[in-house]
Amino acid sequence: MKDYKLIVIGAGPGGYVAAEQAARLLDGPVAVVERSQLGGICLNWGCIPTKALLKSAQALHYAQSASEYGFSASEVKPDIEAIVARSRAVSGQLSKGVEHLLTKAGVEIIYGEGFLEGEGVVKVTSAADGSVERIHAEHIIVATGSRPNALPFAPIDGEKIICYYQALMPRRIPASIAIIGSGAIGSEFAFFYRSMGSEVTLIEYVDRVLPVEDDDTSAAVSRAMRKMGIKVMTSAGVQSVDISGEACVLSVQTKKGLETVEAEIVLSAAGVKPNTDMIGLEEIGVELVRGKVKVDEWYRSSVPGVYAIGDIVPGPALAHVSSAEAICCVRHIAGAEVAPVDYGNIPGCTYISPEVASVGMTERAAKEAGIDYRVGKVYFLSSGKAVAAGQKDGFVKLIVDASTRRILGAHLVGDNVTEIIAGIVAARAAGATVDTLAWAVSPHPTMSESVSEAARQIIDNL
Amino acid sequence: MKDYKLIVIGAGPGGYVAAEQAARLLDGPVAVVERSQLGGICLNWGCIPTKALLKSAQALHYAQSASEYGFSASEVKPDIEAIVARSRAVSGQLSKGVEHLLTKAGVEIIYGEGFLEGEGVVKVTSAADGSVERIHAEHIIVATGSRPNALPFAPIDGEKIICYYQALMPRRIPASIAIIGSGAIGSEFAFFYRSMGSEVTLIEYVDRVLPVEDDDTSAAVSRAMRKMGIKVMTSAGVQSVDISGEACVLSVQTKKGLETVEAEIVLSAAGVKPNTDMIGLEEIGVELVRGKVKVDEWYRSSVPGVYAIGDIVPGPALAHVSSAEAICCVRHIAGAEVAPVDYGNIPGCTYISPEVASVGMTERAAKEAGIDYRVGKVYFLSSGKAVAAGQKDGFVKLIVDASTRRILGAHLVGDNVTEIIAGIVAARAAGATVDTLAWAVSPHPTMSESVSEAARQIIDNL
Repeated sequence: MKDYKLIVIGAGPGGYVAAEQAARLLDGPVAVVERSQLGGICLNWGCIPTKALLKSAQALHYAQSASEYGFSASEVKPDIEAIVARSRAVSGQLSKGVEHLLTKAGVEIIYGEGFLEGEGVVKVTSAADGSVERIHAEHIIVATGSRPNALPFAPIDGEKIICYYQALMPRRIPASIAIIGSGAIGSEFAFFYRSMGSEVTLIEYVDRVLPVEDDDTSAAVSRAMRKMGIKVMTSAGVQSVDISGEACVLSVQTKKGLETVEAEIVLSAAGVKPNTDMIGLEEIGVELVRGKVKVDEWYRSSVPGVYAIGDIVPGPALAHVSSAEAICCVRHIAGAEVAPVDYGNIPGCTYISPEVASVGMTERAAKEAGIDYRVGKVYFLSSGKAVAAGQKDGFVKLIVDASTRRILGAHLVGDNVTEIIAGIVAARAAGATVDTLAWAVSPHPTMSESVSEAARQIIDNL
Repeated sequence: MKDYKLIVIGAGPGGYVAAEQAARLLDGPVAVVERSQLGGICLNWGCIPTKALLKSAQALHYAQSASEYGFSASEVKPDIEAIVARSRAVSGQLSKGVEHLLTKAGVEIIYGEGFLEGEGVVKVTSAADGSVERIHAEHIIVATGSRPNALPFAPIDGEKIICYYQALMPRRIPASIAIIGSGAIGSEFAFFYRSMGSEVTLIEYVDRVLPVEDDDTSAAVSRAMRKMGIKVMTSAGVQSVDISGEACVLSVQTKKGLETVEAEIVLSAAGVKPNTDMIGLEEIGVELVRGKVKVDEWYRSSVPGVYAIGDIVPGPALAHVSSAEAICCVRHIAGAEVAPVDYGNIPGCTYISPEVASVGMTERAAKEAGIDYRVGKVYFLSSGKAVAAGQKDGFVKLIVDASTRRILGAHLVGDNVTEIIAGIVAARAAGATVDTLAWAVSPHPTMSESVSEAARQIIDNL
């Protein structure tokens, strides 16, 4: 039985980062076991290929808006085959990049299904020929990610009812699509398909789109979606999907009663479910809590030598969280410097137009916690950069604790705000108060200036 | 003689911000004296209208790159009249916004030339009818900005040899343009005119473009410019410009000897000169040092009650610096909370493609200062967001003090980096070390992730 210092199961943004770090920091061989593609869902079927599609939509939009920007362009038309091919090429290139990174670091890549057998043993069933091999390691990191939540009333058949996997590779633009769930995934596909010309109905169970975001963000996004012609239904529960006819027919319970929605295809985007089954976790005695692996701050499970990171542990199921956990877990094993992940300071982004980015508490949460807080809100309508760019939608909203003056939350909607939020995360990590943001000099003209402006609004209100 | 609590001379990004703050924070009437347009050069003839032109160039570029993004577009052609009209409209709208802001705050706007007569008196010569009025205030803030540096060998005639003013309003696209000076202004116009189809020669006296930036930035920008067909000449001193013929003929001294450059028009972009003359400063005894007003950290000049901010005081001549100084000056007068401007933490941006943004020390400066530093450098070529966006040029370079672990400098080249730099400024203001940037969780996929990655590169090297 081949022996490793560390084995990682799963090569997504948690697993591949863990394996690369381990190969650099630990003494002894490192392997990663992957059943499908390097880079995992994020790189192959999630964050990255969607960003490629959305970039095509953005470029297309600029060409369609030629007259607004002072140039001419005719016969502007999306070519869905080319757009999908580009998106697949981007994923392929980055997956190759991960292979290069791992190989360069000296990680052994084993393609197969990993299964924990206890005492440091991982059974690997080869992806190529089904042959079985057992390997051993002192440390095993499980990073198997998640899969789409199955809705009992909308079973995915890959044709009429699809998940993100098929939504990323349409053979043609559907005349109409109904999307169940308005989280980041559902909202991004709504935006993409609408940009391609589909009639889009976005159906959300709770009373607002992007429900984890601040209420002001949900309202702004809802307005922007409606403006581009997306039909947004909130407080709407899908009861059934009838796929027996030509079109899919959805029965949707709303405040008005039972409504009917027809669409050529249905995208199920109702969150994800951790891959904690079928990999031997419970069999070897790893404790789960509500389907996720119970871990300490260094990602040690209840079984010594077995660690878990990413979507299968508590916390938000986000690629950057998985990578941060990977680094933290491995560096702790290696005895290298690292700070535990601060779960109160994790940003989230949605790449629609206008973009959405946030970190920390929503105003609703601050209110519910009974905190004495102040809000600063600056609309991009008054930003020179936004006006010059013709991108006036959105705002910066800061929520500040009136007694500690700390930034409880930041909520941004607007052009390129996904690039602004990391700076607020870093400033919070450094202990920034509203004063820090108010007096730090932001460059002019940028959208980021509005962050300082929102902070200054609060200062005179404290 | 009408009496005010505070008078501001000049309504640029220093002056209008000062007037608005003063009206909100001080007891008593506030006036601003402006000889031309609200918003000053920045808003009318600088930062803002150039960003509008450059946005048109960006949108045009997306349409021209249709096939790369998977769509078709034909007959893509810039309409320079429409592009200029859009840019002027953007400035007009924002200038109106400043008027609204000032009026709402209760600031009296007086159109005319202001001249200091001492003892709190400002003589105003009306812009409308030349009539003269004298007004008085307890506090006078001078914020008269700057004008283009005159080159003796290339006197601006507004036709063949132009400055930014005419360059912002071309009636047609010149076949060729020679630009003297590769600072932010020269580089942005080089990029814009090349995007419109002109043959562009960019002539820089020192040995690299964007000379205030890090050497790696200059090299990357030079490469990008050459790639788009701009002829870049460095270590090149213009000796004379002959405008007697059809074309302008420039004699340029380079390492190869005397070279000749021909161009339809010449843009002089060799920096700016402070407007400290002709406004009575020296006459009332205000001390100048090398043409700029000597001030303390609250912008008090040597004459009690007379303050100076913006391009006419030492420090970088940047709009955001003027605004920060305005806020600082007025809040100090009002006795409101404020921190002095930290001149070691001022970002700078150049809005070409790829964009350039930086703050703090260059590597050259760190070396010259004899500091024990470490460099972290991450290329966007390996960034998922950059690859998905088709914007792989550029990098993040961090320079860290090996003993204090503080961020000495950050130098970014790439798509949207002008929106990333403010966060690094805020983090530095909050006392961030390389550890803060390394362990703060940036969202995936973004360009800003590369900042954390560069920081982590340094950690294992300390």
